[in-house]
Amino acid sequence: MSGSTLGTLFCVTSFGESHGPAIGCVVDGCPPGMALSAEDIQVELDRRKPGTSRHVTQRREDDIVEILSGVFEGRTTGTPIGLLIRNVDARSKDYGKIAELFRPGHADYTYWQKYGIRDYRGGGRQSARETAVRVAAGAVAKKWLHERYGIVIRGYLAALGPNVVPFKTWEAVHGNPFFVADESVVPELEAFMDRLRKSGDSCGARVNVVAQNVPVGWGEPVYGKLDADIAYNMMSINAVKGVEIGAGFECITQKGTEHSDEMTPEGFLTNNAGGVLGGISTGQDVTVSIAIKPTSSIRLTRRTVDKQGASATIETHGRHDPCVGIRATPIAEAMLALTLIDHALRHRAQNADVVCTTPRIPAQAPQDVIERLRAAAAAENDEA
Amino acid sequence: MSGSTLGTLFCVTSFGESHGPAIGCVVDGCPPGMALSAEDIQVELDRRKPGTSRHVTQRREDDIVEILSGVFEGRTTGTPIGLLIRNVDARSKDYGKIAELFRPGHADYTYWQKYGIRDYRGGGRQSARETAVRVAAGAVAKKWLHERYGIVIRGYLAALGPNVVPFKTWEAVHGNPFFVADESVVPELEAFMDRLRKSGDSCGARVNVVAQNVPVGWGEPVYGKLDADIAYNMMSINAVKGVEIGAGFECITQKGTEHSDEMTPEGFLTNNAGGVLGGISTGQDVTVSIAIKPTSSIRLTRRTVDKQGASATIETHGRHDPCVGIRATPIAEAMLALTLIDHALRHRAQNADVVCTTPRIPAQAPQDVIERLRAAAAAENDEA
Amino acid sequence: MSGSTLGTLFCVTSFGESHGPAIGCVVDGCPPGMALSAEDIQVELDRRKPGTSRHVTQRREDDIVEILSGVFEGRTTGTPIGLLIRNVDARSKDYGKIAELFRPGHADYTYWQKYGIRDYRGGGRQSARETAVRVAAGAVAKKWLHERYGIVIRGYLAALGPNVVPFKTWEAVHGNPFFVADESVVPELEAFMDRLRKSGDSCGARVNVVAQNVPVGWGEPVYGKLDADIAYNMMSINAVKGVEIGAGFECITQKGTEHSDEMTPEGFLTNNAGGVLGGISTGQDVTVSIAIKPTSSIRLTRRTVDKQGASATIETHGRHDPCVGIRATPIAEAMLALTLIDHALRHRAQNADVVCTTPRIPAQAPQDVIERLRAAAAAENDEA
Amino acid sequence: MSGSTLGTLFCVTSFGESHGPAIGCVVDGCPPGMALSAEDIQVELDRRKPGTSRHVTQRREDDIVEILSGVFEGRTTGTPIGLLIRNVDARSKDYGKIAELFRPGHADYTYWQKYGIRDYRGGGRQSARETAVRVAAGAVAKKWLHERYGIVIRGYLAALGPNVVPFKTWEAVHGNPFFVADESVVPELEAFMDRLRKSGDSCGARVNVVAQNVPVGWGEPVYGKLDADIAYNMMSINAVKGVEIGAGFECITQKGTEHSDEMTPEGFLTNNAGGVLGGISTGQDVTVSIAIKPTSSIRLTRRTVDKQGASATIETHGRHDPCVGIRATPIAEAMLALTLIDHALRHRAQNADVVCTTPRIPAQAPQDVIERLRAAAAAENDEA
Repeated sequence: MSGSTLGTLFCVTSFGESHGPAIGCVVDGCPPGMALSAEDIQVELDRRKPGTSRHVTQRREDDIVEILSGVFEGRTTGTPIGLLIRNVDARSKDYGKIAELFRPGHADYTYWQKYGIRDYRGGGRQSARETAVRVAAGAVAKKWLHERYGIVIRGYLAALGPNVVPFKTWEAVHGNPFFVADESVVPELEAFMDRLRKSGDSCGARVNVVAQNVPVGWGEPVYGKLDADIAYNMMSINAVKGVEIGAGFECITQKGTEHSDEMTPEGFLTNNAGGVLGGISTGQDVTVSIAIKPTSSIRLTRRTVDKQGASATIETHGRHDPCVGIRATPIAEAMLALTLIDHALRHRAQNADVVCTTPRIPAQAPQDVIERLRAAAAAENDEA
Repeated sequence: MSGSTLGTLFCVTSFGESHGPAIGCVVDGCPPGMALSAEDIQVELDRRKPGTSRHVTQRREDDIVEILSGVFEGRTTGTPIGLLIRNVDARSKDYGKIAELFRPGHADYTYWQKYGIRDYRGGGRQSARETAVRVAAGAVAKKWLHERYGIVIRGYLAALGPNVVPFKTWEAVHGNPFFVADESVVPELEAFMDRLRKSGDSCGARVNVVAQNVPVGWGEPVYGKLDADIAYNMMSINAVKGVEIGAGFECITQKGTEHSDEMTPEGFLTNNAGGVLGGISTGQDVTVSIAIKPTSSIRLTRRTVDKQGASATIETHGRHDPCVGIRATPIAEAMLALTLIDHALRHRAQNADVVCTTPRIPAQAPQDVIERLRAAAAAENDEA
Repeated sequence: MSGSTLGTLFCVTSFGESHGPAIGCVVDGCPPGMALSAEDIQVELDRRKPGTSRHVTQRREDDIVEILSGVFEGRTTGTPIGLLIRNVDARSKDYGKIAELFRPGHADYTYWQKYGIRDYRGGGRQSARETAVRVAAGAVAKKWLHERYGIVIRGYLAALGPNVVPFKTWEAVHGNPFFVADESVVPELEAFMDRLRKSGDSCGARVNVVAQNVPVGWGEPVYGKLDADIAYNMMSINAVKGVEIGAGFECITQKGTEHSDEMTPEGFLTNNAGGVLGGISTGQDVTVSIAIKPTSSIRLTRRTVDKQGASATIETHGRHDPCVGIRATPIAEAMLALTLIDHALRHRAQNADVVCTTPRIPAQAPQDVIERLRAAAAAENDEA
Repeated sequence: MSGSTLGTLFCVTSFGESHGPAIGCVVDGCPPGMALSAEDIQVELDRRKPGTSRHVTQRREDDIVEILSGVFEGRTTGTPIGLLIRNVDARSKDYGKIAELFRPGHADYTYWQKYGIRDYRGGGRQSARETAVRVAAGAVAKKWLHERYGIVIRGYLAALGPNVVPFKTWEAVHGNPFFVADESVVPELEAFMDRLRKSGDSCGARVNVVAQNVPVGWGEPVYGKLDADIAYNMMSINAVKGVEIGAGFECITQKGTEHSDEMTPEGFLTNNAGGVLGGISTGQDVTVSIAIKPTSSIRLTRRTVDKQGASATIETHGRHDPCVGIRATPIAEAMLALTLIDHALRHRAQNADVVCTTPRIPAQAPQDVIERLRAAAAAENDEA
């Protein structure tokens, strides 16, 4: 299977360049009978689209999606869903210079060396514009996961450069242009972004994504693990340099007694596993965190080489996000949704007949249970 | 493709449980004509095998590999290579208790809920014993990559619990039981491990892996990116909770001017990208870092539930690694090798005819060039 | 990989219903640098399109293809090629009746039972209209195979119902509406078709396809055989019920001495293998023959059931091909091209470095050599 | 996915050469909880194994299968099932000559040209010995299909060279060494085979396979059609040159009124479709017919070339089947079972939630219904 198709059973095949006629995808393997309209997809696209605040690119990309197939009388038919997004604001002149120079941090050099040819306009195929396709396909997945299993997938910006923003409430996320889960920090972030934009530089970000109500049992060890596929899907997003599940890199300094999540009939006591054990979902929240590198397109002068291999410098003007991470939240949600739906289908393909008499324990023990158990353990230690 | 097969063109299909008759795999798609003996594979297996020091499990696993097919008169024939490792030290009695209880941090509960049945002996299929298969298959990949492209893949333990061990030399790695790249810290680590083992607890670890001499151009964006496949392969290793490429999570606090690697005719000035841009190798070292959680099998008492869902406690005796990360270095190397060979083949399938007239720039500019450029830049800043 | 994607490395992902907004596909994995225009594809589409003679459907399907991506400045870039064909002549009213009844010989009943929903207009996804997509994708494959290897892929109608039409010349094929390789039979076929159309019935057909100049070595045994993939691709064409390679079913009554193709330094003496031995191309012509069932949409009354399971009768009016086999020639050529290009890439992925010192023997020994050898053999027999 | 893996969800990965240490496979994706023993597999292997009559090869291949994994306490666990068959009767000396010459009709020349190296002993990887692996894997599939859906898969030899043997009863098949469904012809076939063996020549065969009780709805159009996958699986069997579904090539001369199967509430009136419409099973018997070429290894002298490309002759002695088709029946059954189980899983992955209110019609209308309807139709015609 070539590199533009994602998934084993719920498959997304993507196409399109930033400044070509259109981008789009084919979503194949969607279960039939689900109500689906262009509007269902559009709402997700609108969350990602540029120009929603002064902190993101001012490019105009209306990102209007058209459903070309696979939906009949408002319901999915089980046949491939063709999705099309025409490119509208392709100012190719902005990009003439890239034709001759390789921008540091971009894939100009690697595409050129790999293929010997590239559509340099706006980055062509390497452009993050392709992520609109992921959001569109992810909207279909999200909807099915929610309707069929009650799964809720939500993300938030957990760090904007050096500004760490701990989670407060999900309600906060939708009320601010940064997707942070704490509205009180918004003025601070705005000031930070204004300074950054003015400086001509860019910054990185951390995005966290959480899937709630994922049933126990999804994932296909030993290679097709749920977390392996999450890592794949997340790392395939432009600019992502790191992926964590649950405790992530913090597990290095944890003791076994701290990390492994104890189980009680009332539920798990902690969730360091991030909802995945042995590559299979536990029923707890699936928690993922990704690192997004700073935008490579910046106004400041950078050393590079040209197509003849000679030394050169470059400043990238044009309309770029000073932090691509800000708009990454809907993309990360989409990629998690696409991983989950694929494993939902893979799981029932093999295991639809499994009857497990052992009760499933709740995702999370109630807070009072956790506290009572901790107190009891502390008392026991005191005695000893 | 089901979950026990890895790779698109160089495919590894794994089988086997910890305490069944055997583990093994089929390596399909290997280029023909390469000299290959069981000994070539055995040397890598011996690096991973238990019992090599007091800091790892004392289980006896000879891990003797037999080549069942695909090699004729000492050379690969291009047909599938069957590899078999018989299990020899299966003390099933150690594991009787696991049949009734779900060990926290292990996949007992998830396998049980998913399949409704599991071979609980030694963890069965979820056991890290399966990683021997990865090392065996990886040995074939490593050899081809080295002979065909001069690629060298090496890893080291970069942190043992809270003990961070920066890289000093590759020579150091092979001379100590921890795979650390600085022998001077070994006594300290030994003391740490002795205390840890005595305490009955366990700790996590960080392993770094580096591939040198990877040609520019490998990777299949936009989904089949080289780094996406690395993330998948790494996250599929038992106990891994995080994966980084290049700067990894550090990129969050980097500025664009810091992160993106400037290019000169003499080479790249830095390697924050970790050798991958836009999902395609740059020709620089491919650098990967993974987080390995603390061993879940510990002697200390833990809360859990039994198969009837009732509350219970468990202590895991038996012969377990207090830090599974120590033996993870050869596994991580193998998984990187398997990713790279698959993309080597995928790349030339599509692009064998590409002639790119642009010169390839060296992986890394010489140190004196870097210093001269930095000095010049500093002087310029002073003037301004 | 879901059912709408074809191929391992050169992948076609198809979408679209007969009477939806559009049909199309994504062609992924195409080697970069090949000149490609919409016109290159259009010429093949025009060979398949309806309305070219009175013997095929009079539906108007202009089948104008638009290239949405993957081509830059007239050359393929190695990124996915999006192809779009808008539906223009969608007279949905013709199809109202099908909503309630299952047409015998059609997939109405099976789609309905499988998915619980279907776009019945014009057969929706089951419509042979989807084959336009195959022809479009096949045009890309054909072009590359010809430019890179000199491969020529051509088909012809070898039987129209009971009328067997042996091969005479390739030139003949393009000069008649039946794709037969002997123009002298055209009047006879026209009369046959006129009678058939008038009777309200339909007939089957045989189409033969030949690929010349295929290099020796393509195919991936033991499952991914070249002929296995040809059989898959051909049988996936609407209405195909049988596939033969080389001697095909005739081999049943052949002796081993007749069937197996003797080899001489001047070339193979026969080609019963149809250019494939052990699943790998021999260098001889790859010859394929397919059986296409009679059109199921006929004017004559047929028994069926309705959506309530009650007995009913149906006559299908509308504009249908009395023999769908007539327009199948370009489709079969396309499917053979898609099989071959996929194996061209797969072969070089694994075997690009193979140096075989044994000379390759010519595809076919010259006729005089064959005759001389036969005469010698006969003489020898006489003596014995 | 490389060429030695078969299937999308129920995957078989095969390895092994005729004269290497062993052949075997990994069966991945099998649903858990099914009772499975080595004996279940052995009974199928014994049907295929050589030496059961004087009409097949006298090689000794005990074909004793060992289950290496995936079964615990007599039940499948859902993890990969490793199957191993050691080679025991490897008389390599019989095959010395093949090292230097390419046997006509065999894959010696193509393997050599493709890989530049080959294990020539007994044909190595190209040997039909690999089909034992298919039968072993197919036994697992067959058992599950029967237990879960009541599916019965049976084959018979329908022609032995020019001797066509129509179907009489299934009981007959197991009572004779030819797998023919009519015991009365056995003496005749024995005489034919004795003459053939004596002549030093070989003959082809036709094998028919039927799957009963296949539910309606299996298959993934438009490429992953049930019949496309059947064609792939069948054509991948050594020596197969043609595949038919249902009426097969006979459909060419059928009229639409003859071919398309009318439907009534009592069932389908005919089964020209062979149980597949639009690539989806109809609920009728799935009927498949394959053509198997005459054995290429014959005693008579044949022209060929040697490794230097020089002219040569060859006679193949050793212990070969004069008609490989005789032992092909269990293989063809296995390949049909492997196709069906894969589609069973694929179907429920996507469509497990489909509720179709339309009644399913019976596979076949009772004979008296068919006759009554025919009489009525004839009467109507008489009146008209």
